[in-house]
Amino acid sequence: MHSDGENLYFNHEFLDRLSERRTDSTWLAAKQRAPDTVFLLFYSLNPLVTSEPLKEDGRGDCSYQLSRLRRPSVEPLLGHPNTTLIFLGVEKPRTCAPNTAMDDGEDDGLTAWFALSTEEDPTELVKFPDPQCAFLQAPMPGLLKLSDNEAGVVAQARAVLAWHSRYSFCPTCGSGTRVDDGGHKRTCLREGCRSLRGIHNTCYPRVDPVAIMLVIHPEGNQCLLGRKKVFPAGMFSCLAGFIEPGETVEEGVRREVWEESGVRVGPVRYVTSQPWPMPSSLMIGCHAVALTTAINVDENEIEEARWFTRQQVIDATVKAKHAVFSLPPRQAIAHYLIKHWIGMQANL
Amino acid sequence: MHSDGENLYFNHEFLDRLSERRTDSTWLAAKQRAPDTVFLLFYSLNPLVTSEPLKEDGRGDCSYQLSRLRRPSVEPLLGHPNTTLIFLGVEKPRTCAPNTAMDDGEDDGLTAWFALSTEEDPTELVKFPDPQCAFLQAPMPGLLKLSDNEAGVVAQARAVLAWHSRYSFCPTCGSGTRVDDGGHKRTCLREGCRSLRGIHNTCYPRVDPVAIMLVIHPEGNQCLLGRKKVFPAGMFSCLAGFIEPGETVEEGVRREVWEESGVRVGPVRYVTSQPWPMPSSLMIGCHAVALTTAINVDENEIEEARWFTRQQVIDATVKAKHAVFSLPPRQAIAHYLIKHWIGMQANL
Ligand SMILES: Nc1ncnc2c1ncn2[C@@H]1O[C@H](COP(=O)(O)O)[C@@H](O)[C@H]1O
Ligand SMILES: Nc1ncnc2c1ncn2[C@@H]1O[C@H](COP(=O)(O)O)[C@@H](O)[C@H]1O
Ligand SMILES: [Mg+2]
Ligand SMILES: [Mg+2]
Ligand SMILES: [Mg+2]
Ligand SMILES: [Mg+2]
Ligand SMILES: [Mg+2]
Ligand SMILES: [Mg+2]
Ligand SMILES: [Zn+2]
Ligand SMILES: [Zn+2]
Repeated sequence: MHSDGENLYFNHEFLDRLSERRTDSTWLAAKQRAPDTVFLLFYSLNPLVTSEPLKEDGRGDCSYQLSRLRRPSVEPLLGHPNTTLIFLGVEKPRTCAPNTAMDDGEDDGLTAWFALSTEEDPTELVKFPDPQCAFLQAPMPGLLKLSDNEAGVVAQARAVLAWHSRYSFCPTCGSGTRVDDGGHKRTCLREGCRSLRGIHNTCYPRVDPVAIMLVIHPEGNQCLLGRKKVFPAGMFSCLAGFIEPGETVEEGVRREVWEESGVRVGPVRYVTSQPWPMPSSLMIGCHAVALTTAINVDENEIEEARWFTRQQVIDATVKAKHAVFSLPPRQAIAHYLIKHWIGMQANL
Repeated sequence: MHSDGENLYFNHEFLDRLSERRTDSTWLAAKQRAPDTVFLLFYSLNPLVTSEPLKEDGRGDCSYQLSRLRRPSVEPLLGHPNTTLIFLGVEKPRTCAPNTAMDDGEDDGLTAWFALSTEEDPTELVKFPDPQCAFLQAPMPGLLKLSDNEAGVVAQARAVLAWHSRYSFCPTCGSGTRVDDGGHKRTCLREGCRSLRGIHNTCYPRVDPVAIMLVIHPEGNQCLLGRKKVFPAGMFSCLAGFIEPGETVEEGVRREVWEESGVRVGPVRYVTSQPWPMPSSLMIGCHAVALTTAINVDENEIEEARWFTRQQVIDATVKAKHAVFSLPPRQAIAHYLIKHWIGMQANL
């Protein structure tokens, strides 16, 4: 049913967003009081987690677990004026049986999840469930060490919270705004503001589409990878860039490759997509066939770009001792685009 | 080299955006003075156009042409404080010869295009080149009646201008902003604002990814189309919706179809994309296979949704007298997704 790409990290939809409930403040308030409701806590966009001991072989795939707080632990923070609360959704029922309609007031049996966020140290206000738990110190690399289900929840929560943290003023008039729709909307507080007439994207979270591409040599046996100065030594990855207004995905791919590497690209083929909540990108992953091969890097963005042979890529994939470069981590769509290519025919 | 979808309306890249020049204020200023530089004028986001007489058979494909103004016509508006100016790019050279490097000051022979925008009636300030020219009264349907090349330019210009018109205040602190980078960036004017530390999307134009999908019946011989109340009588089109933070394209497709029609979707296949500058969407077009067939429309958004047989779709495509519905206009990606399906095998 799903293509491989849909198993990517950040791509799991563990929750049903139930967006029709966002405007139902009675239901939302009841869920906030329900004993099984889960609250995730973020401080400066970093989630509260517990470290999991590594597996015996020292490898273990997920080394952090989100702290799932209950109402009593977060009570003091909930009422605090600088707290942002967003409704994330409900746990999907394990069976596929449709939810039966409920009488008003009757519990619908759905377990709701919320994210709570603050920019002020909440340690005094919150009762931590476990002395081991702590806020991630930085998004990277911690955010890449969650279970698949929790990564999907964090993809949603962090992207929406990052929007709240940067968009608390109305961009149309500069006034303050209030949070609506279970944390999925902000409304200008100034009566008469243009943003209140009609529907405008100023009121909704931002999602930035990014084109990310593996460029394949015209002869089919090499691919183009680049590195930024900030990458770990030896690592090369796909080129990528923000899709601009008025552009297609395919033209965005061609323009970014040209800008960053001086290589001209012809055919572009979509492969898969991935949300990337740093802060709120939608990665649109493509394979693209080069028309030219001379490299001329944009030194503002890229330190080096090179053609790598299929064998060199395979060596990097298996982390061979003689590998000439290393791949981006398996959680990144770039890793998937590269692996997908070596499993493919030489031509698109 | 290009797939069909790349010939879609709004998808033509007539200009080379030359983004590396956006920070070169000397070059931009010289281009603004150059006699062959083209200025497009927008008043409340509607472009100045000339009407073209329809062809003799009364059909004619493009009925509006952008007015290409020169420096002397727009001089008074250029200096005006409420004017927004954006650099769109340069005309692509007709041959593929690389641009030879130029001595400083020497003319590089490139014809630059700018868009000028104002929210105040500019009729008094601008010398109109032609008594016939006028501002479009509304974006629709006029914006769909340009030539392919001009549609591509308008896709870029209108999306960026719409962002300026709604985002003139810093969303992080509410202060005013100034326009930078040839109109592709806004910078907060308040010293110490958080938006000035690091790189943040608050400073860059917004592009909203939208999933738009043709849902195909599990048996392969019918497709699901819906209509909004505002559609012309009899018209049905693809379902569509904004991709949310933390979501893949594929999950966005499944969620929106479920929300709007109550139909569950399994496999999703990307087909093509299109910018839609009303105000700044990126339409991501997919085919999707339904797992269920019962329809339950979200009445807030959709008036009616129905399964149509392949023959009914063919009848609509050829505008047969007995057609039971009409298609969206050929300029819309929905039209393309529908036509693409009837040209396809019954299975994805
Ligand atoms: N939405 C955005 N968020 C952050 N940076 C952006 C955005 N749009 C354009 N940029 C610019 O794009 C640069 C990164 O280049 P690229 O990712 O290759 O497009 C940043 O340094 C910014 O100057
Ligand atoms: N970026 C956005 N721009 C406009 N409306 C949005 C945006 N994001 C979410 N919405 C909401 O989505 C509704 C349209 O539904 P849909 O296009 O099906 O997602 C609008 O009425 C808004 O309530
Ligand atoms: Mg880049
Ligand atoms: Mg770039
Ligand atoms: Mg870029
Ligand atoms: Mg919709
Ligand atoms: Mg929606
Ligand atoms: Mg919808
Ligand atoms: Zn406002
Ligand atoms: Zn600011």
